[in-house]
Amino acid sequence: MKAEIVSIGDEILIGQILNTNSKWMAEQLNLIGINICQITSISDNKSHIIKALCEASNRADIILITGGLGPTKDDITKNALCEYFDTKLVFNQNVYRNIERFISKRDMDMNNLNKEQAEVPENCKIIPNKYGTAAGMWFEKNNKVYVSMPGVPFEMISMMNDDVISLIKNKFKTPIIIHKTILTQGYPESELAEKLSDWEDNLPQNMSLAYLPSPKNLRLRLSVKGENSELLTKEIDTEIDKLKKQINSYIFGYDKETLQEVVGKLLILNNKTLASAESCTGGNIAQLITSVSESSKYFLGSVVAYSNKIKTSILNVNNNSIEKHGAVSKQVVCEMASGIINSFNSDYAIATSGIAGPSGGTEEKPVGTTWIAVASKDKIIAKKFLFGDNRERNITRASATALNMLRKLILHVND
Amino acid sequence: MKAEIVSIGDEILIGQILNTNSKWMAEQLNLIGINICQITSISDNKSHIIKALCEASNRADIILITGGLGPTKDDITKNALCEYFDTKLVFNQNVYRNIERFISKRDMDMNNLNKEQAEVPENCKIIPNKYGTAAGMWFEKNNKVYVSMPGVPFEMISMMNDDVISLIKNKFKTPIIIHKTILTQGYPESELAEKLSDWEDNLPQNMSLAYLPSPKNLRLRLSVKGENSELLTKEIDTEIDKLKKQINSYIFGYDKETLQEVVGKLLILNNKTLASAESCTGGNIAQLITSVSESSKYFLGSVVAYSNKIKTSILNVNNNSIEKHGAVSKQVVCEMASGIINSFNSDYAIATSGIAGPSGGTEEKPVGTTWIAVASKDKIIAKKFLFGDNRERNITRASATALNMLRKLILHVND
Repeated sequence: MKAEIVSIGDEILIGQILNTNSKWMAEQLNLIGINICQITSISDNKSHIIKALCEASNRADIILITGGLGPTKDDITKNALCEYFDTKLVFNQNVYRNIERFISKRDMDMNNLNKEQAEVPENCKIIPNKYGTAAGMWFEKNNKVYVSMPGVPFEMISMMNDDVISLIKNKFKTPIIIHKTILTQGYPESELAEKLSDWEDNLPQNMSLAYLPSPKNLRLRLSVKGENSELLTKEIDTEIDKLKKQINSYIFGYDKETLQEVVGKLLILNNKTLASAESCTGGNIAQLITSVSESSKYFLGSVVAYSNKIKTSILNVNNNSIEKHGAVSKQVVCEMASGIINSFNSDYAIATSGIAGPSGGTEEKPVGTTWIAVASKDKIIAKKFLFGDNRERNITRASATALNMLRKLILHVND
Repeated sequence: MKAEIVSIGDEILIGQILNTNSKWMAEQLNLIGINICQITSISDNKSHIIKALCEASNRADIILITGGLGPTKDDITKNALCEYFDTKLVFNQNVYRNIERFISKRDMDMNNLNKEQAEVPENCKIIPNKYGTAAGMWFEKNNKVYVSMPGVPFEMISMMNDDVISLIKNKFKTPIIIHKTILTQGYPESELAEKLSDWEDNLPQNMSLAYLPSPKNLRLRLSVKGENSELLTKEIDTEIDKLKKQINSYIFGYDKETLQEVVGKLLILNNKTLASAESCTGGNIAQLITSVSESSKYFLGSVVAYSNKIKTSILNVNNNSIEKHGAVSKQVVCEMASGIINSFNSDYAIATSGIAGPSGGTEEKPVGTTWIAVASKDKIIAKKFLFGDNRERNITRASATALNMLRKLILHVND
């Protein structure tokens, strides 16, 4: 069973808005085991709409269409659908009543444009719109299903949730697909791919693997297709168990978790507090941690010690250490970590000192050189990294690396 | 001149990621006068890729392809391109050297997967990848241009900015369009649109205005189309002069400037330093300021005082002030600002204290309530804001508002 999403609207093609509708719909259809074979975004142009529907019907069994159902002149999806299905617009009493109810609730008057919205193609089944005036429409032709919905996200989402998804489930026997994303940090993609190539080659035939890299983590997505969701979940769990034997310490979570959430949960679980002392990350670590709601339960705060004077005056770093080893050194980053634990009286600390770039590099310490320390009251672990030459990504990578080092410290895990 | 964007990658079709690449590319091509006729997202499937390229070539003159160029097994775009262009993969010395440089800079070892990335279709022109190992590729066939780029956003963006856009401009005669974006902060969109409606109605016929709102600012983009770029620039400047007469104090910059860059330049110009004391913004202001290269010249650092204890112990906020007025109050935010000036000995300070949400609100101080103070050694300005109920947007709005208040303080500008 395959589906295609056709998004209609100039605002997508001029790059004014992100196509969040198609992402959401793709996610929902995958959850009921329907593959999306293509997502097509086109403008409000009748002949292009008709062509796109023809092409989609050669690929897919279900075609979900959004957009172009508004009351203004540029909205021509209904006319295109009439031409495609060789039918005409007819007045629909139920749709009219819904528009009337909607308009009166807002103390507005019914105008001709609203009235025209009650005209729908003769051959469709209506899908009610709880949050707007444009009706949804369900068509069937040559064993294919076409669903036309408004482009306004919450109107489309409510139609999908309330009607369309169960109509699709009833109409088609859908296979089951289970996805599980394994979140890793600290292992370069190509090295990991080589390390895991035996495991990947021996995955069950109905299972596939995708590598999804980003500066902050590397996600591995396993997808498995079949008929029994319990069995499929077990199959995936078996493969994850094998994976864990090879790279357990690099796995920090699954699916939509973030490192800052994982660390936050560990701190709450252990009833511990955290503070950070940041130089090269410039507050990014504090910002990540505090992006989690209720982080005030475990995060005391941070000192962003961008100048050396602040490192010595506020964090109590020894001036001699800076003079002898430089600010980007094991000595200084460790003193920053103990300094913040002492001054904030936290259970754990993160400290960073590095050359984010693009300026500030030397032959001995090129741009990207970064020292990171994590500490508890009785232990400090410091490591040196050589990231790249892009300031923003260096900060992102240093922050993710630091959070993952803290996770391992809390869990007493070694690489 | 029409273009089509073809995004390749299962992660888009299963709804795991938003297709931000195609939005960005659509925006950039529109800016040089090229319309996007379709955006097509497909999976890593060879025959589907070839079919999509065929269909795109019937619609568009320029086909921009992203994704599927990684070193792992699911990446098959290069093979599909070879079949489409009836050519074969050949080893490319320059691409190999770039991969080598990239790998050695990261202290990693070259493996077979990396080496395979140096093989490219024989008939393409290479577009260098400054930030990764996958080369970009430029093809020409039957007067159509095809460009294949990595799906990693920053790799694609740098290729487009550094090479692809100017190659397209050279290859095709694109009309002259001049854009100028005026950056404002602190004026609500609907109110500004009303205030500026006379000005907008009287813009020259060849000029158009777009409002581009975001939580951190409101951008007004003027676009003018014609034949003489000098004349067009003058036309735009004339309109901007009229605009300044109405909303000068809200304009903080133009085009790609950011508030943190503007503030940084002002501090360098006046040879002054800055420190921040952040509660609800959680380090976001420090992170914004330090995202600017060489910000260490003026930014001393920040104290993220997430817990009240840190506010009193490190920032010297009076315990009585917190008990009497609450942490989110004029009294406390002013004491935070003077506290950080005293302890860091900076010339200027920013302080924030608010309820970012979703929890923590009360009837008297609902979620979104935020006090912001900016200070010099002899002046403090504090203001109260009521932002919305979304944590992330509240932090973004508070940070932008604080930076703009500081800009006005440095410039002695009043609203």
